[in-house]
Amino acid sequence: MTFPHLPPDVAELRERIRRFIREVVIDSEPPPGGRLDQATRGRLQAAAKEAGVFAPLVPTEYGGQGLSIEHWSPILHEAGYSPIGPVALNCMAPDEGNMHMLNLIATEEQKKRYLAPLAAGDVRSCFGMTEPHPGAGSDPAALRTTAVRADGGWIIDGHKRFTSGAVGAGFCIVMARTPAVDGSPEGATMFLVDMTNPGIWVGEAIHTVDRSIDGGHPHVYLEDCFVADDAVLGEVGLGFRYAQVRLGPARLTHCMRWLGLARRAHDIALDRAGRRELFGGPIDSLGLAQHLIAESVIDIETSDAIITKTAALLHSDPKAGSAMSSIAKVHCSEAIFRVIDRAIQICGGDGVSDGLPLAQYLSEVRPFRIYDGSNETHRWAIARRASAGRHASVRAGERYRGDAVVGQDGGA
Amino acid sequence: MTFPHLPPDVAELRERIRRFIREVVIDSEPPPGGRLDQATRGRLQAAAKEAGVFAPLVPTEYGGQGLSIEHWSPILHEAGYSPIGPVALNCMAPDEGNMHMLNLIATEEQKKRYLAPLAAGDVRSCFGMTEPHPGAGSDPAALRTTAVRADGGWIIDGHKRFTSGAVGAGFCIVMARTPAVDGSPEGATMFLVDMTNPGIWVGEAIHTVDRSIDGGHPHVYLEDCFVADDAVLGEVGLGFRYAQVRLGPARLTHCMRWLGLARRAHDIALDRAGRRELFGGPIDSLGLAQHLIAESVIDIETSDAIITKTAALLHSDPKAGSAMSSIAKVHCSEAIFRVIDRAIQICGGDGVSDGLPLAQYLSEVRPFRIYDGSNETHRWAIARRASAGRHASVRAGERYRGDAVVGQDGGA
Amino acid sequence: MTFPHLPPDVAELRERIRRFIREVVIDSEPPPGGRLDQATRGRLQAAAKEAGVFAPLVPTEYGGQGLSIEHWSPILHEAGYSPIGPVALNCMAPDEGNMHMLNLIATEEQKKRYLAPLAAGDVRSCFGMTEPHPGAGSDPAALRTTAVRADGGWIIDGHKRFTSGAVGAGFCIVMARTPAVDGSPEGATMFLVDMTNPGIWVGEAIHTVDRSIDGGHPHVYLEDCFVADDAVLGEVGLGFRYAQVRLGPARLTHCMRWLGLARRAHDIALDRAGRRELFGGPIDSLGLAQHLIAESVIDIETSDAIITKTAALLHSDPKAGSAMSSIAKVHCSEAIFRVIDRAIQICGGDGVSDGLPLAQYLSEVRPFRIYDGSNETHRWAIARRASAGRHASVRAGERYRGDAVVGQDGGA
Amino acid sequence: MTFPHLPPDVAELRERIRRFIREVVIDSEPPPGGRLDQATRGRLQAAAKEAGVFAPLVPTEYGGQGLSIEHWSPILHEAGYSPIGPVALNCMAPDEGNMHMLNLIATEEQKKRYLAPLAAGDVRSCFGMTEPHPGAGSDPAALRTTAVRADGGWIIDGHKRFTSGAVGAGFCIVMARTPAVDGSPEGATMFLVDMTNPGIWVGEAIHTVDRSIDGGHPHVYLEDCFVADDAVLGEVGLGFRYAQVRLGPARLTHCMRWLGLARRAHDIALDRAGRRELFGGPIDSLGLAQHLIAESVIDIETSDAIITKTAALLHSDPKAGSAMSSIAKVHCSEAIFRVIDRAIQICGGDGVSDGLPLAQYLSEVRPFRIYDGSNETHRWAIARRASAGRHASVRAGERYRGDAVVGQDGGA
Repeated sequence: MTFPHLPPDVAELRERIRRFIREVVIDSEPPPGGRLDQATRGRLQAAAKEAGVFAPLVPTEYGGQGLSIEHWSPILHEAGYSPIGPVALNCMAPDEGNMHMLNLIATEEQKKRYLAPLAAGDVRSCFGMTEPHPGAGSDPAALRTTAVRADGGWIIDGHKRFTSGAVGAGFCIVMARTPAVDGSPEGATMFLVDMTNPGIWVGEAIHTVDRSIDGGHPHVYLEDCFVADDAVLGEVGLGFRYAQVRLGPARLTHCMRWLGLARRAHDIALDRAGRRELFGGPIDSLGLAQHLIAESVIDIETSDAIITKTAALLHSDPKAGSAMSSIAKVHCSEAIFRVIDRAIQICGGDGVSDGLPLAQYLSEVRPFRIYDGSNETHRWAIARRASAGRHASVRAGERYRGDAVVGQDGGA
Repeated sequence: MTFPHLPPDVAELRERIRRFIREVVIDSEPPPGGRLDQATRGRLQAAAKEAGVFAPLVPTEYGGQGLSIEHWSPILHEAGYSPIGPVALNCMAPDEGNMHMLNLIATEEQKKRYLAPLAAGDVRSCFGMTEPHPGAGSDPAALRTTAVRADGGWIIDGHKRFTSGAVGAGFCIVMARTPAVDGSPEGATMFLVDMTNPGIWVGEAIHTVDRSIDGGHPHVYLEDCFVADDAVLGEVGLGFRYAQVRLGPARLTHCMRWLGLARRAHDIALDRAGRRELFGGPIDSLGLAQHLIAESVIDIETSDAIITKTAALLHSDPKAGSAMSSIAKVHCSEAIFRVIDRAIQICGGDGVSDGLPLAQYLSEVRPFRIYDGSNETHRWAIARRASAGRHASVRAGERYRGDAVVGQDGGA
Repeated sequence: MTFPHLPPDVAELRERIRRFIREVVIDSEPPPGGRLDQATRGRLQAAAKEAGVFAPLVPTEYGGQGLSIEHWSPILHEAGYSPIGPVALNCMAPDEGNMHMLNLIATEEQKKRYLAPLAAGDVRSCFGMTEPHPGAGSDPAALRTTAVRADGGWIIDGHKRFTSGAVGAGFCIVMARTPAVDGSPEGATMFLVDMTNPGIWVGEAIHTVDRSIDGGHPHVYLEDCFVADDAVLGEVGLGFRYAQVRLGPARLTHCMRWLGLARRAHDIALDRAGRRELFGGPIDSLGLAQHLIAESVIDIETSDAIITKTAALLHSDPKAGSAMSSIAKVHCSEAIFRVIDRAIQICGGDGVSDGLPLAQYLSEVRPFRIYDGSNETHRWAIARRASAGRHASVRAGERYRGDAVVGQDGGA
Repeated sequence: MTFPHLPPDVAELRERIRRFIREVVIDSEPPPGGRLDQATRGRLQAAAKEAGVFAPLVPTEYGGQGLSIEHWSPILHEAGYSPIGPVALNCMAPDEGNMHMLNLIATEEQKKRYLAPLAAGDVRSCFGMTEPHPGAGSDPAALRTTAVRADGGWIIDGHKRFTSGAVGAGFCIVMARTPAVDGSPEGATMFLVDMTNPGIWVGEAIHTVDRSIDGGHPHVYLEDCFVADDAVLGEVGLGFRYAQVRLGPARLTHCMRWLGLARRAHDIALDRAGRRELFGGPIDSLGLAQHLIAESVIDIETSDAIITKTAALLHSDPKAGSAMSSIAKVHCSEAIFRVIDRAIQICGGDGVSDGLPLAQYLSEVRPFRIYDGSNETHRWAIARRASAGRHASVRAGERYRGDAVVGQDGGA
């Protein structure tokens, strides 16, 4: 991939991250199926700070590199070349999305207390939105966790699930349904809840096939959980709107990181294809491998292109960008899965063994088609928006084109 | 589609073209299977000149709108919303690619004689490269047409095929193999040959399923065809290099135009889906139509994104851009075909009748997967470039990643 | 394809048809886009009678070969190797389906009057079911044509559309909604209507991309159309049930015929691939063509297999066979389209010209994904049946398997 | 799925196996990622013997059910409904394929010594063919293991890899290259080697993502491994021919077993779809889930159909059946993967957790696209056979159809 339009400082940062990943991070990767231990995590994050590549998306006043969203992709692409790269650089979900949102809507006091240590890698965080059926799953409107007014604060009750990163997290951003109070609309509100609060605790683990998110995806319970007024993140009743603010970019940074991993898998496949002899010749001279390689290149480059387009749109028109992020998420999550799957195929038996990391990569990205809204939910939303947009154009005067001409005598 | 970053004058031109297509061009479309007649062509081109939308890609000194390649896409997208739009605006293949190349490499004299009337829509042109098997088909290196030195010029002999636009063309840019002469390398050379030259004539027609290119795709024969020295376009022996200069952008402008047509088909489908009742409800409320619609949106937006990326690259790094144009061509030609195919499916029986133009649109774009190098030839080239690029990286020090670790004891 | 289990007489008939198609029929094919003229049709049918290959699906007492449905596929496969083969052999839609239904439910008198001349090729027929929106399209239940009791018969009023074969047909089997009368249930009833009846006439043509069905797909109007009691086909009120009797096998015979055409396209591609030189070697030694060829073989063989399975089921369990025919129709119509599309790709520019018949073949089979119920309607029905079947199993005691185990501690 | 043509005793056996799997086996399944322990294996096999469902493919004289290959599919389909079902019933790879081959080509003495205990489940076996690069991988002809004549026997030297089942196996069928001796041709020979032989030992494990094959896929080394003359399986020099005898059916039984597992995944998805509420309604009323379900039904039924076709062909014409088994293997292995992948998607987050077994099922079947010859190798072979077959037909007089007609004037 080429990035012709990067400003020199971003290009230089990208190059530094590229070297850091290759020279420092990759050698510390756990074996397939393993997890990054906390000591290695600390060591890598320290090295990343020293190398000036830490927290690339975080504002400089919080110790980051202060990149604009238009330049996230080439950076996260390099970070994601290692499955532990984004953690080493502190730009992994869910912390990365939480930092982005905190920076946009938290008070200065909240930033000092929550954003600063998060940006420094001193604590981790989680985001409590998803609930067990029939609560908020793919449909946030089904939210069942509630917060009610109490003296000087709120009392939250509810049950969260798939709370990525919760084990060992310092705090959780909890989404709860709130009544109309004090002029605020009925709706959802976000709360900053310390995990030391006795009203919140981590429940059963959900063992999933991915390994790269620290802190698992457990159930989290809230019962009589009192938080003070200053725990409200942003304004009361605007939680769904903030969730959108978080989700659009968060979806896209997943695309960026996993595209890096797809490129890693593709490199493994190219290396293997360049060496392996099959039927008397190198496999990459054979068209069936060439077919797979070409398809992967097309998947990688179109993914990169739709990410770039979406990032630019999120920058200039966040609402349109958020809609486009659904399209990018569906395309990239499926394209990336295919790239890794093809790399496995090219590597044959080694591809499904842990002699190569490819099978684990497939497990890392399989959930991506489900997390952050399943692709089918996004397809539904994409179709609805397309239909609604077209109907609006027709109502605004664009000619309706759905009528068949009867008895037209064509040239055929 | 949204174009957040267009300069105001380009955005304004796009809007004017959009209106011109909808208000003037669409009503003049021939019925499905029919062809644009010359009178209508003339009338529409005159109207386009008057509306200030004529020849958008041509430099202003030749009467065009002088757009940079980075801004071609939104413009050609609007032109292509009608299958006759690009002809009406004089930005259709093969003239458009010929004008681009003439502008880059012709002498001032040649520009005056060939580019000026072409840009004005007064003549049409063709490009004589493809030959019958076993000559230059997908593989230009197999070129069999030859030109040899004669007194004050050259004598060309050969047989071309699929010479798009040749019937009624004023001149042909003929690619011929030339020996090493006068310090020029052996190779291919381009010649500007007037179709009135007695040594060139149009042969048998090749009836293809597309209708939007004026002048058919006939055989063209050259026998003892004498041209003077000033018929050489660019330098002797550099024909293959110029062909690349032409082909990269030409491939991409096809993508741009046909993407406009795909959008037209998609609008027809959306309109139909919004009205049609099926099983008691509108078809677009049904998930199977939603699946088709979402897939088409994804195809349209990823095509737009890879076009934008490729155009930027052609602007900043033509060689990398030309390589990327293979990827864009394969993706877009297949995505566009799918979009139109799905629109047909959504429209049911009307979709395959000429009560709607969709079946004809499918015939327009089917050849696009073959013309300008078949997609399989491009896939071969894409895979080769990917392998070669990776091997170069490894030779330059990047770690080889194709070795499986034996006996590694993973966490799985 | 191999047919290991054919009885000797069927194998012999297949071989005779194979030779008849190759030696007699193919040379009489019209050029791409053309139609079979009536004189040639007559001549070929006469030759087919003489060769003992006429009307293979028709009972011997009506001059046919009396094949059981289990043996239709290898026979129709051979017939369909030419797009005019099924007409030459009188086993083309819609006559073939009408003959099948007449044989099953017509009275002896009706058989003599309608089936006999149809089987002999002396008249053609049509089937009047589909109506303009919002009438019976993909959803037969929306039927709007009505028949009411009149003295000694019925009066039919309605508007049909896509009435394949109507131009020049001798009679039409008209589906009309009938009230509950004389103990018959309210529902639909089938009527045999002579096209000479002044109450029925052929209206506007619908020009579609296919050419192989004689008599077009026009609108048909019925107004005050009186028919006598003996025009009722089968029993009053059972029209929908009969339609199913017709549709299951009719869907499947389409699959059989078009699979023959797919094989023709595949042979063209294999021949071309065996000759064509590309980059210095035959194209079929190149993996990208091999990829296309292998995919087509898989499509052809799986289509053949699901047809065989469905035919056996239609024989032993018509209801299950009819459900399976939806699956066969969706798979085969898409597989056959892909096979022809790939053949075009392998043949390059010739593939989209009428120098080869492939582009026309693509137009022949494109509507197959829409006719006889669009594939999306069938997918909807397939999914509904799968869900209903599984729910019934669970209600009958099969264990419900949709619950996730919480907190299970796996080996992963 | 329905099996209309099963003889009553086979239908009865199928029903018994179906009940045995559901009532006995499923409750003993290890958690996702876990392996069947030996005690449970023994207990299940004992229960299977008692239930009269043990070793269904083995001849009755060796204690099996003696099924003909035409009836394997419905039986293995039921066995495969549980990932441990085939082991419980002693019809799992590699033992099942080894038993099939031993039964066909072993001497009575060899059968007594090797087949009898294998059929009884008292020992396990492995098949030593695959070797490390550049030895016999996808290409058996590259075989590097050698056997040379020694006094009263042979001495084998070599290195095998991916020797499925080797850990704990009682014997290995080793494929080795042998010189022309005593009138036998140069070629490959199969040897029965006891794992207690000091010249053979199990080396490094290869950890793969599948769990259902007992005994892993380790390296196996042979050094100075002496075996007596009676260790030769079949005739000297015919090893490649025997390998084909084994591989065709072995490929197909994989398809049968895994299709059962796909059906299990599909049932889980149907159950989940029937319960889950999404946007206020059950998810299976939504078209996007319906799309996935319909696609899975089509994949399941076409897989079943091509398996049935191939089994019949292996019965009547083993050579043609073996060629068809390549097609079945490619189609089924990809279709089955898709079915499980879609089931995961329908189940959302639970689908990628070990609360459901689906993610593990995906890991079970992913290698199936690689084992027994990668699908790309099979595609290459399929294309080659198609080209060769067509060329032979043309040489035998079938008309060559690859020529384009020049200047044909069609109706288009």
